[in-house]
This record gives sequence, structure tokens and C-alpha cells, in this order.
Amino acid sequence: MSDKAQIQEAIKTQGEVVRKLKTEKASKEQIDEEVAKLLELKAQLGGDEGKHQFTLKTAKGTRDYNPKQMAIREKVFNTIIGCFKRHGAETIDTPVFELKETLTGKYGEDSKLIYDLKDQGGELLSLRYDLTVPFARYLAMNKISNIKRYHIAKVYRRDNPAMTRGRYREFYQCDFDIAGQYDPMIPDAECLKIVHEILSELELGDFRIKVNDRRILDGMFAVCGVPDDKFRTICSTVDKLDKMSWEDVRSEMVKEKGLSEEAADQIGQYVSMQGGKDLAERLLQDAKMSQSKQACAGLTDMKLLFSYLELFQVTDKVVFDLSLARGLDYYTGVIYEAILTQNGPAPEAGEKGEEGVSVGSVAGGGRYDGLVGMFDPKGRKVPCVGVSIGIERVFSILEQKAEAEVMYKKNPKLLSQLQHCEDSGIPLVAILGEQELKDGVVKLRDVHSREEADVLRAELVEEIKKRIADV
Amino acid sequence: MSDKAQIQEAIKTQGEVVRKLKTEKASKEQIDEEVAKLLELKAQLGGDEGKHQFTLKTAKGTRDYNPKQMAIREKVFNTIIGCFKRHGAETIDTPVFELKETLTGKYGEDSKLIYDLKDQGGELLSLRYDLTVPFARYLAMNKISNIKRYHIAKVYRRDNPAMTRGRYREFYQCDFDIAGQYDPMIPDAECLKIVHEILSELELGDFRIKVNDRRILDGMFAVCGVPDDKFRTICSTVDKLDKMSWEDVRSEMVKEKGLSEEAADQIGQYVSMQGGKDLAERLLQDAKMSQSKQACAGLTDMKLLFSYLELFQVTDKVVFDLSLARGLDYYTGVIYEAILTQNGPAPEAGEKGEEGVSVGSVAGGGRYDGLVGMFDPKGRKVPCVGVSIGIERVFSILEQKAEAEVMYKKNPKLLSQLQHCEDSGIPLVAILGEQELKDGVVKLRDVHSREEADVLRAELVEEIKKRIADV
Repeated sequence: MSDKAQIQEAIKTQGEVVRKLKTEKASKEQIDEEVAKLLELKAQLGGDEGKHQFTLKTAKGTRDYNPKQMAIREKVFNTIIGCFKRHGAETIDTPVFELKETLTGKYGEDSKLIYDLKDQGGELLSLRYDLTVPFARYLAMNKISNIKRYHIAKVYRRDNPAMTRGRYREFYQCDFDIAGQYDPMIPDAECLKIVHEILSELELGDFRIKVNDRRILDGMFAVCGVPDDKFRTICSTVDKLDKMSWEDVRSEMVKEKGLSEEAADQIGQYVSMQGGKDLAERLLQDAKMSQSKQACAGLTDMKLLFSYLELFQVTDKVVFDLSLARGLDYYTGVIYEAILTQNGPAPEAGEKGEEGVSVGSVAGGGRYDGLVGMFDPKGRKVPCVGVSIGIERVFSILEQKAEAEVMYKKNPKLLSQLQHCEDSGIPLVAILGEQELKDGVVKLRDVHSREEADVLRAELVEEIKKRIADV
Repeated sequence: MSDKAQIQEAIKTQGEVVRKLKTEKASKEQIDEEVAKLLELKAQLGGDEGKHQFTLKTAKGTRDYNPKQMAIREKVFNTIIGCFKRHGAETIDTPVFELKETLTGKYGEDSKLIYDLKDQGGELLSLRYDLTVPFARYLAMNKISNIKRYHIAKVYRRDNPAMTRGRYREFYQCDFDIAGQYDPMIPDAECLKIVHEILSELELGDFRIKVNDRRILDGMFAVCGVPDDKFRTICSTVDKLDKMSWEDVRSEMVKEKGLSEEAADQIGQYVSMQGGKDLAERLLQDAKMSQSKQACAGLTDMKLLFSYLELFQVTDKVVFDLSLARGLDYYTGVIYEAILTQNGPAPEAGEKGEEGVSVGSVAGGGRYDGLVGMFDPKGRKVPCVGVSIGIERVFSILEQKAEAEVMYKKNPKLLSQLQHCEDSGIPLVAILGEQELKDGVVKLRDVHSREEADVLRAELVEEIKKRIADV
């Protein structure tokens, strides 16, 4: 079969996939993804099929925002900006691209995900990968040693996109960072307070904030007998614990990375530990852990952090979790990550999100005291701590919520409303007509099966909750 | 002399340039530009001079926004967005890059200014050059034939930057466009009304909005004897009339583009014409012009446009100007451009801004009825008209204004305030002490000459106006 015939065959198959999804009323995003594949195939046929044979789509892993989506985005940003401003932050902006060398050596293995611009003469440029490195460059360039700043902007990563789960190649980060010399753990605690405030205000359902410290991790590796030169690579294996079982992680450590079984098992005991201030206190008494000065410094700070968190009344959501490692190279102290514990499509098995965190993750950050010094001509350091809210996943949750919508129409007919529910995939309709009013009931209609049942108004909330859980 | 010695020599010379500017208290922007050159030279020496020998700067033609600048930017955006919303527009957003083919064939000669991304496997991408082409792509992709939308976002052009005059390689455009079939000239008039409202609200000083029509231009070329295949190239020569004398433009037409002297002289008579509705009426009676159906259609619409502008009460600022041509290929009807007639650094002789308009230009746009059809698989057309506000120049004017600042300090000493004025280049100080209060006067101090004079309070405003005009 010729290339062209092969492509035409593939177009036919893909066309059927799209038709099937449409018949099944699959989600718009799912259909769009398959349509995009179809269009790409058609584009491969080249220009000989007519004038308009180019691909009508956005770049892979990116999307447009329509006016409805923009309204949600604006609301989310206002909530976040309001919180950042309450905490006294000013905002800055930096260009979408940086000199390539500015980004070099900051992201470890993830550097391969950086978008480079074509060399068209002049400087070599790359699209920004996060807002933290441009912030550090800005501080060094302007000799600023003290600022609270927020920055909301798009960043770019040539990652494998999974758009239905809110993972894009172009996505927003909402960053809040505190630069400057302060009493230990006060700015760190403020960052956690901010995550707590924002996730509460956005009403995304329950969440947890995991906390750890790079010094505790390094100290733990040391006392467990990990050789110095294996700290980073063992650390990135530990980072996989949120998507792999301990057995698999252990096996990677021993078989791939050549760690002794004894060391791996000792690590295994520690990384299963979760707790609060009490855990930090216990580990300070731990015969092995207390041998590491680094670990003790981290644990003492962790205790202090939790006493501030108690004052801020946010300890209900914060967990000291020794398995939290985080991917980026530049962290030097406290690290944290917030995950939603319900809501939205669950991450696929073996699925990892940006920065090597589970896609349930909606915020992350930590302390990076060495980054500004990498830019300063004299190596002058500016201690920094910050947090980044990953907003695409929040958008997709809120967009789904917005589907529970209201129909604005004069004299809407019941049938056309029911049709709208079928078209939009709304699962349940509550009907309150004259008869129902008289009887003190509400008619609940299952849109899919079209079955109806009267429910006492006192029992309505419970019944709807039950039905939705079944959907 | 070795390469290295040459560079070291250049560094020495450039270092002196920077020191001189600092001694002369030159503008921060001017100093920054020279410092950037110095840093680039130093970077050429390579890494052997120590660990931190890379260039600490933003990419050429780009800049950071500090918190003060962000505050101005936010205020300007709020004014503009407020106006766009009053006129019923919704907002959308599109990715910062598009498939390269989406931008191909839309910008004529300016295509060479497009930033391409490096081919890292997968799709070929380019940074957006404006917001109009992504908008047309969005309409075709989503089969939208009717929308009022605004979009405020950064666009990218590898142009020769002139940052002190507000010309950057990364800059904001604030676009408002109306897509859909309407009664002739109503959406076009609304766009002009919007420019009028925004420029008035921003208080940038006096302005003019020049209006013309591509059909009038083409008709004029036809009746003056320009061959069909020379319309576009003669049009781009006419477009240079805002920076070149008629003699030079005529010479380019005749000598470079091979137009007959007779045709050039006939064009010369028309392009010197400016007016309002009356001019459109006069040209409709013009023996030559009235021979072109195209010109007559354009002139009839121009008359209609002016009657709407009269209703909107904005004719005081609008001029029908036959020399306005505008660079972009995709315009099909009315075109316009707003220029500030005072304020800010004047454009250099022979200096042209983005899209080939004088850098005094702060807004431009027109009708483009064919662009969406270029994207639609079936060539289905959606008539569109829109306007783009170029905001960087507005920022630089407002940033200069913001220099007339207030000193927030407890118990400020007079001497330190005067020192601050000298340092910041503030020209005039009004001093109101106990003695002045008693005498009913205000002491005016010329910061440069340090001369002081008492002025009666009734005469103060006039006197300050006079002094500032002299500065």
C-alpha cells in the first residue's frame, strides 16, 4: 500500500473513532483530541486536496479560552490575587523568553522539556519553564534583597500533555515568593498559610498539604548509608512513591541505582512515616536520625514551622511526610505540595504530573536559598521561599462545576429543558410544578433512564447526594 | 591585537560611555541600554574569568515590569477593559504560539519579523505576531460567525527595538474586534468611537485619528494609471508619506518602482487631501475618481461613516486622509490610525514604528473581510473590523508623568527634598512655609538654577504653566 493510501486508511479509521465518540456523547475534550488527530492525518495528505488543506488547530498541548472559560479564569485569579495582596505582595512581570543560558543548569533532568527558540541570528532564547528562575534573575539583576512578590503568567514545558486532566504544554502558574533575611520559618509558614487560604476559598473540596525538608531527606540518606554521590538520584526515586508501590521503589533503588538492600530497607522505614510536630520531636530522639546534624537542623525547623502553623490554625490540613521529595534541583530547605483528596478525574495509574508530582497536586514550592546567588556576579545569596499554584487543574474542576447551570429563558418549556439536560450530560433534574408544590414533594428525574420519582422535600438533599454518588 | 585584547579594549571604551552617562545623570533607560552592551561585551570574554561570567540581562528588546510599572499597567488596562466591556465585548485568550503555517502568508514582507521556535520534533511553531490572525483562526476553528471580543496579550516581533521610545520586541496589544454581518459602517464607526473614548480617558494629550479605505486607495491607483500588479507596492510607498517628503516618495515610485511621472503626479494631488464628509462628497463628484466603481463604493461608505461619527460626536478628532495606507496585507475596507499630536519623545527623522506607522501612532486597525475565509475549510467568509491599541508607548508616557511624584516621609527635611528633585530631574518646586502662608504667596524654585521667586497664589497656576513650557 502506498504512503498516501495508508494515510487515507488511517483517516477512515480515525473518522470512525470520532463519529463513535459523538454518538456516545463523549466529553467535548475527548472528542476534540480525536478530531485533532484526524486533522493531523488529513494535513499529512498535503496541499493537493484543495486550497484549505492546512491544519486548523492550536499547537499540541495548548488551548484557547472561550469567554465562559475566561470568566472562570478571571474569578479564580481574583481570589488568588486578593490573597496575595492581603499578604502584602507586589507584582512584577518578566518576558516570556529568557536567554537560554539563564535557564541552563537550573532544572536537572527536566531541562529537556524546555522550548528553545530558533536561532535566527542574535541571542539564543528559550521560553520560560517556570516563574522562579526569572524571579531569581530579576532579583540579581536589580540587586533586590528584600521583596514579597507575586507573578501570574504562563509557562512552557514540552511535556506529554494530558489535557482532559488539566495538563498542558502552555499553562498558568500563580507564584508567591518571599525574598530576604527573616526569622527562621516565618516566611515558610506564611506560604503554607497562603496555600491553605486559597484552596479553602476556591472550594475545591478537601485537600492535604504535605511538608518535608531537603535537609531531613539528605540527613536520612546519610544515616541510612546512602553514599554522598547517590543522594540526588535516590531522592528522585523516593519522589516516585506517590505513584509507585514501596516494593517497586525499593527495587529501583537496589537494582537500577545499586543501593545496598540494607540501606533501602532503612529508608523504607522512614519514608512511611507521617505526622505533625510530634513526629519531628520523635525523630529528634531517634537514635540514627539524631546522628545527622543536617537532619537535626531540619527537624528543629520543622518543629518551629508547626508551632507557627498552630498559631495560623492550619495544622488540620498539613502533614509532615518523609516521602515527599519534589523534583527540582534548587530547593535547599522546607518543601511542600498540596493535593486535592477528592473531586475531578483521578490520576491514571503510573501517571505523573508536572515537576514529577501526582496530577492530584495543585500547589507546590519550597525554600531555595542558593538560586539568586547563581545569578549574582559576586555570588551574593538572597534567601527565598515561595509557592506556585497550578491553576489548569483548578480550572478544569471549576469548569465541570459550572456545567450545573441555570437556563436563562423566558417561558422555558419543560421538554426543551429536558432536551438541554440530555444534550449537556446533566444527570439529574429536580422538577417542581404545581402538583409537586401541593404534595410537598419534588419530582426527581434520571435524565439517562428517564425514570421519575417523587421525593419528600425533607429527604431531597440526601436523595440527590445518593443519586449523584451513583452516577 | 588578539580577539581577546580587542574585546577588552571595547569593554574599556564602553565602560567609559556608561560612566559618562551616569555622571551626566542620563535617563535610566539610556544607561541601561549602554550597560547591556557592556555586559554583552564582557560575556564575549567567556567563562574563563570566573564562575559568573554569563550575561545578566533580559533578551534583546524585552524588559521586566517592576511593581511601580505594573501599577501603571493595571490602571491603563482597567481603563481599556472598562471601555471594551461597555461596548459589549467578551474576552478570549489564545496560546502564545501558533502552528507556523497559521501565520504564513498573512503579513506580507513583515513575515521576516516572526519568531520561530526551534524544531525539537513535532509541530513547527511560531510566536504570535499579532492578535488578529489568531482571532481569525479561532473563529474559523469554532465556526463562530458573530462575536464582539477583546483580547489583551503580548505579541512578538523581531524588529529593531527602540525601547526609550516604547518600541519593544515583546509588547502588549489591546485588541477589540467585531465579527459578523451588520449594517454598513456601524461596527466600523464603533471601533473609532472606542479609540476616541480610550485616548480621551487616558489623558495622553491631543490626538488625531486618520481614516481611509483600501477601496479608495485602489480606485485612486486605477484612475491615476497605476498598473494592477503595482497596486500593493505603490501602496507601501504611499504608506511612507508620514516619514518621507512627497518628493522622496515620488522619486521612489518613479525610479525604483517604474511608475510613469504622470501617474505619480496624479497620485500626488490626491494624497495631499485631508478633510471630512465634505471631502468624500467632493471626490464623489471628481471627474477622474468617480470613474472607479471601487473608489465610489469606498467614498459612499466614508460619507456614511462620517454621519455615524457625527452622531457619536467624535468628528473633532477624525480626519479623512488619502495618504493613510497601513502596512498589513489583510485589510479590505476602512483603515485607521490614531496618533498623539503632542507629548513624549518625538520620533526620530526617518523613524518608523511597528506595522510601518510613525512611532507617534498609538492605535490602528481596519476592516478585514477575507481573513477568516483563509482559515475556513470551505472558505466561508466572516466580515470583521477591529482596532488594536499599542500600549507600550502609552506606558512610557504615563511612566514619565508618574515622575511628578510625592515624597512619603515623616518629617521630610527641605534640603533632602530639594536634593531628591535634583537627583530625579524634577524641574520646579513649589514651597509653602509659614512665611509664605502669611504673605499669601508661594515660593517657586527653579531646581536647576536654584533661583527662587515669590508668586501670588492667584497667579500660581499661570506661572507654573509658563515655567514648564520653558523647561
